[in-house]
Amino acid sequence: MSHPPFTAIIDSLPETVPFVGPETIERRTGIATRARIGANESGFGPSPRVIAALREAAPEVWTYPDPENYELRSALAAHLGIANDEVTISEGIDGLMGLLVRLFIAPGDVVVTSLGAYPTFNYHVTGFGGDLRFVPYSGVHENPEALAAKARETNARMVYLANPDNPMGSFWSAADIARFIDAVPENCLIVLDEAYMETAPEIPLALDTSRPNLLRLRTFSKAYGMAGLRCGYAIGHRRLVGAFNRIRNHFGVNKQAQVAALTALDDQTYLRWAVDAIADARLRIARIATENGLRALPSATNFVAIDCGRDGPYALAILEALAHEGVFVRKPAAPGLDQHIRISAGPPGILDILAEAMPIAVKNAQSAP
Amino acid sequence: MSHPPFTAIIDSLPETVPFVGPETIERRTGIATRARIGANESGFGPSPRVIAALREAAPEVWTYPDPENYELRSALAAHLGIANDEVTISEGIDGLMGLLVRLFIAPGDVVVTSLGAYPTFNYHVTGFGGDLRFVPYSGVHENPEALAAKARETNARMVYLANPDNPMGSFWSAADIARFIDAVPENCLIVLDEAYMETAPEIPLALDTSRPNLLRLRTFSKAYGMAGLRCGYAIGHRRLVGAFNRIRNHFGVNKQAQVAALTALDDQTYLRWAVDAIADARLRIARIATENGLRALPSATNFVAIDCGRDGPYALAILEALAHEGVFVRKPAAPGLDQHIRISAGPPGILDILAEAMPIAVKNAQSAP
Repeated sequence: MSHPPFTAIIDSLPETVPFVGPETIERRTGIATRARIGANESGFGPSPRVIAALREAAPEVWTYPDPENYELRSALAAHLGIANDEVTISEGIDGLMGLLVRLFIAPGDVVVTSLGAYPTFNYHVTGFGGDLRFVPYSGVHENPEALAAKARETNARMVYLANPDNPMGSFWSAADIARFIDAVPENCLIVLDEAYMETAPEIPLALDTSRPNLLRLRTFSKAYGMAGLRCGYAIGHRRLVGAFNRIRNHFGVNKQAQVAALTALDDQTYLRWAVDAIADARLRIARIATENGLRALPSATNFVAIDCGRDGPYALAILEALAHEGVFVRKPAAPGLDQHIRISAGPPGILDILAEAMPIAVKNAQSAP
Repeated sequence: MSHPPFTAIIDSLPETVPFVGPETIERRTGIATRARIGANESGFGPSPRVIAALREAAPEVWTYPDPENYELRSALAAHLGIANDEVTISEGIDGLMGLLVRLFIAPGDVVVTSLGAYPTFNYHVTGFGGDLRFVPYSGVHENPEALAAKARETNARMVYLANPDNPMGSFWSAADIARFIDAVPENCLIVLDEAYMETAPEIPLALDTSRPNLLRLRTFSKAYGMAGLRCGYAIGHRRLVGAFNRIRNHFGVNKQAQVAALTALDDQTYLRWAVDAIADARLRIARIATENGLRALPSATNFVAIDCGRDGPYALAILEALAHEGVFVRKPAAPGLDQHIRISAGPPGILDILAEAMPIAVKNAQSAP
């Protein structure tokens, strides 16, 4: 007896995990993670007020969350200076990506992104039968001009750009982003992933929710230190934002996430402290790299990309040697980027472990066959 | 400038909320909810051990959840006597429904359900372009025989049955369910929604994960008292369960939900206490109904359907009069069921408020024009 048939798209998809978690690596290797600095989380954690709010709200988890996320949307709208119906909330940016691809992409529709950019976006595009077209990075930057050109040339329905960039940590100015937006055709949705905006060196492009082909994605997972709570939001024209209400899982954002995000937003003092702490950690990571003969790239994010100076296999050998020391980091896999490893900011005690492990890792990688 | 075009399916969908939350009603009416007994939540709350675990884990929300939900899946599998890859976890049963419809339903595919059954299932079927066919309830029961017959007759890809039933609280024995399963064609997926199984009067049909067309949905939202945390699971053949890994939001289940569910599962003593407390509350609700000249239906769930004895508008008038007293309940809207209101179990203090409000509500409904 065979199972009922899947749809044609589902038949074409593999079972996958876009990111293998450090928990899985621990289970496989038996080596305990001593420094968790690979997933661009914030080891500085959330605001103490967030922790207090989570604890206070714990007995209230018996009720469903407000399906309209009303309080949080109102607070975000006030904070951003936009209207309530210009922001929608979901289970992290990953959840938003699944929904926005579903809104716009039918099988065969072209979607443009950079080769080596966020894989979960690609996962969702493929998951709805989209036709991904890749533009190579220009050095360590996504190439906005080439992305817009490719979107025009392919009559793309959607184009993705992260600013600041993951995995390279690079950054485009507001003027550069404005030029990119103007160069994309009106019938192509621009997905501007601003997950790392809080740690950028300058304020990003002003919010313009009148533009009907621009969605900006932000999150409480990075500088706010709440990756485990899954709370991301999309900002844009009310017709775009409203469309999520046609398909979203209305009760998908968990009540603890709502409470925590509301509190986090209200504690901008902590956010500024965390952003400073992240900046200090970036400097320390860069120093550790230099001390070990590696080259740290400038970073606008909560992680530092480090050029290991040779090829992909060599960078991988360093990553694996770090893993052997209990230091969890990740690395880009795309050609042209794969000589880098990517290390997330963390508190001093955790970076001490990195400092201790790095010379061992480099030595081991150099002596590898 | 118009926005980029949505897909054809999206164009056909309205913006909607499958369930209007009590928070929204409060905002509209300005009347504070004194008794929240309309969403089939558990006013008895989660286990005290769950609350303690949530509090202890609060500082750890800076890390992403394990995308494989490994510990929770292992614990569930051990608890259920199945293999790890025969259970998958998602953001509540609602999240699972969105995924399972997407796995199997292409535009135009027929899906069979009962007229008046869970609306969020219908929302997802419509959201993927499925063709819903409805079978009327037989009295206050879903009609398994007619559902299977309709599935055969329409060559349906999917058929939905809740046991125990929501919104009526009725229940079919394991033998009845086994007969239903056997009557559904092999190429049609059976979605057996067992959200309320913990409060049923007898142990449900034994788990048989060898059957390739059966998925059973369960949740921590009801008897476990954790609706706000969004954690549901699907049990079935490993080929069905594995397919969720092709499309799910891997990081969708929040870390607090993972911690809480793991703890809740480990505290079966509390679950038994909660199930007893829910049974007592059902008796009390039935008594309140009788005292007010209404008729309570037998219930296998954490709520009681009450026949108001006249028509839909009369039942609605009682519901609205209750709302005016700060008592939030819901009611079925489907013809044949709509003379009922549905009241969730809650602790004695909350049911005192119901006892006080009900005579006023009935009197007001009777004197309504």
